[in-house]
Amino acid sequence: MRPVRVAIVGATGLVGQTLLRILDERRFPVAELRLYASADSRGSDVVWRGQRCAIQTLEEGHGSAGAPLAGIDVAFFAAGAEVSRRHARTVAGAGAIVIDKSTAMRLEPDVPLIVPEINGELIGEKRLIANPNCATIPLALLLAPVAQAFGVKWASVSTYQSVSGAGRRALEELAEQSRGFGGAPAALPRRIAGNVFPENGAFDEAGHSDEEQKIAAELRKLLDLPELAVSATSVRVPVAIGHGEAVAFGTTVDASLDEIRSVLRGFSGIVFAEGTRYAAPADVAGTDDVVVGRLRRDNAHPRAYLCWVASDNLRKGAATNAVQIAEYALRVRATAAS
Amino acid sequence: MRPVRVAIVGATGLVGQTLLRILDERRFPVAELRLYASADSRGSDVVWRGQRCAIQTLEEGHGSAGAPLAGIDVAFFAAGAEVSRRHARTVAGAGAIVIDKSTAMRLEPDVPLIVPEINGELIGEKRLIANPNCATIPLALLLAPVAQAFGVKWASVSTYQSVSGAGRRALEELAEQSRGFGGAPAALPRRIAGNVFPENGAFDEAGHSDEEQKIAAELRKLLDLPELAVSATSVRVPVAIGHGEAVAFGTTVDASLDEIRSVLRGFSGIVFAEGTRYAAPADVAGTDDVVVGRLRRDNAHPRAYLCWVASDNLRKGAATNAVQIAEYALRVRATAAS
Repeated sequence: MRPVRVAIVGATGLVGQTLLRILDERRFPVAELRLYASADSRGSDVVWRGQRCAIQTLEEGHGSAGAPLAGIDVAFFAAGAEVSRRHARTVAGAGAIVIDKSTAMRLEPDVPLIVPEINGELIGEKRLIANPNCATIPLALLLAPVAQAFGVKWASVSTYQSVSGAGRRALEELAEQSRGFGGAPAALPRRIAGNVFPENGAFDEAGHSDEEQKIAAELRKLLDLPELAVSATSVRVPVAIGHGEAVAFGTTVDASLDEIRSVLRGFSGIVFAEGTRYAAPADVAGTDDVVVGRLRRDNAHPRAYLCWVASDNLRKGAATNAVQIAEYALRVRATAAS
Repeated sequence: MRPVRVAIVGATGLVGQTLLRILDERRFPVAELRLYASADSRGSDVVWRGQRCAIQTLEEGHGSAGAPLAGIDVAFFAAGAEVSRRHARTVAGAGAIVIDKSTAMRLEPDVPLIVPEINGELIGEKRLIANPNCATIPLALLLAPVAQAFGVKWASVSTYQSVSGAGRRALEELAEQSRGFGGAPAALPRRIAGNVFPENGAFDEAGHSDEEQKIAAELRKLLDLPELAVSATSVRVPVAIGHGEAVAFGTTVDASLDEIRSVLRGFSGIVFAEGTRYAAPADVAGTDDVVVGRLRRDNAHPRAYLCWVASDNLRKGAATNAVQIAEYALRVRATAAS
């Protein structure tokens, strides 16, 4: 692929740092790399592929044309919803492929929400593409082949979400509390070391947390099942990296355990762990594997199954998926141009 | 109440130690206290209510009649299923009230499985009484008033179980790993510090773990609903004390959120947290509260609800419930005698 000019907005955050690592690991064709962060990080720099790269703010980083990120071919936004809302459409309008890791535009009808193994074909000529939530990606990867083969009537998930999903300050808070230091919780709503809590974002009037709503709404969009019945309980656990999810789902038509296993084994987006095997967060941290294990009948409902899914929330749950989207979009353009 | 002669078998374990604390806190009428443990603890002693109490083994502790625990009025067994299977029926046969915390006889038809707030009336003149699993007690306390008022058609739970539920050696393993020490996991199947894993006991042929089977079978017996559809995913989390549970349940007849709230508020076995409030394990550790919070609709199913339950697994999940059973049994006898 022809090398492209790449920007990362939010380059000093956990996802931004993971993006840098994954662009390198996957030998992403980078002609030029521009890194942006908030004013707090101004003056710092990053060494990437042996080259020193200065961190700029978006304001000072305007191109010669005066527009943010002018001349950039691929821009990754990983700086939160507000920054994305302010800049992502402008940058895409100026011609760049924008992959937005924030929540800002995931549910907008004109913005495809993409997990390449599930619905990469929706990327087409789109220049603004949303990357789903870190808990939704593994859940959707598990359910997509089941939905395709047998239909999915409902899904219910209890999450075991690591602290890195709440960002660098939350991770520091866990580390400080684990060493016996740290005052009142600040980045997280409660003490997390030696504790778990079912609170991840604000609660709506019906009592669902922000994360629980995201999981339901994004899953419906990713699977293209607008009526899918979904419920979630999102829980933070004292793990640094790697999300676990206890998933229950019901199929529309009868399917034997062997038939479910067979479609899961054959789907490229997941690693299927046979029998009672499974992966824990510590097993998948640092990898791109979404491991589906402990598949068994859900005795609470007819035509229903239980399983356990684990994945690295910073990689396939965020940065790896974003880079895969960029690769897919560049391939589409290369094919169209040839 | 007339003071009674009390024995604790397994007095040096986590549940045994908690039993000692709770007998004191509740001013249980103890005329004499005899403590038993395995040969490893021989020679050690415990100070209880200012008195030194030697730890004996069951073998050396036979009474003058030659039978284990001869002369004891109330015996708490908290030394594992094997010890209970060997001695509990004999001791009860000799006239003692035996409260068995182990799994040995929970499902035996002639042994009542008791949570006093739910089914204390089944104690009657029984002398051998089983105490349920620590994850089942809070779940049953939540569902009992719902079952009574609206029927419960199905229940599904994902647990967040603390390490103390696996015993003292598991707790030491967590502490060592948290300090950066400790070799391969021994008391637990995986590393637990900074990790979670859905494995709690051996897996059966259908893929359910031992703990998951216990939760289902004991819940059916406690609620006297032998056909109740139940499923569970039991997960260990790096928390010292306090279990969390993400529970979903369906009612048999229509019930509004307000009606469910109302029966939960009115039930003496639980503390109902209003609105989106909830308790985390750190909030309930050291208390006898079973806190039900975050009650909301389960959008995955009709007539279904989600909530979050937290409780101290060593107290109401084990020792407090056992002492409450003993108090109940003694009251029955006192009433019958008067």
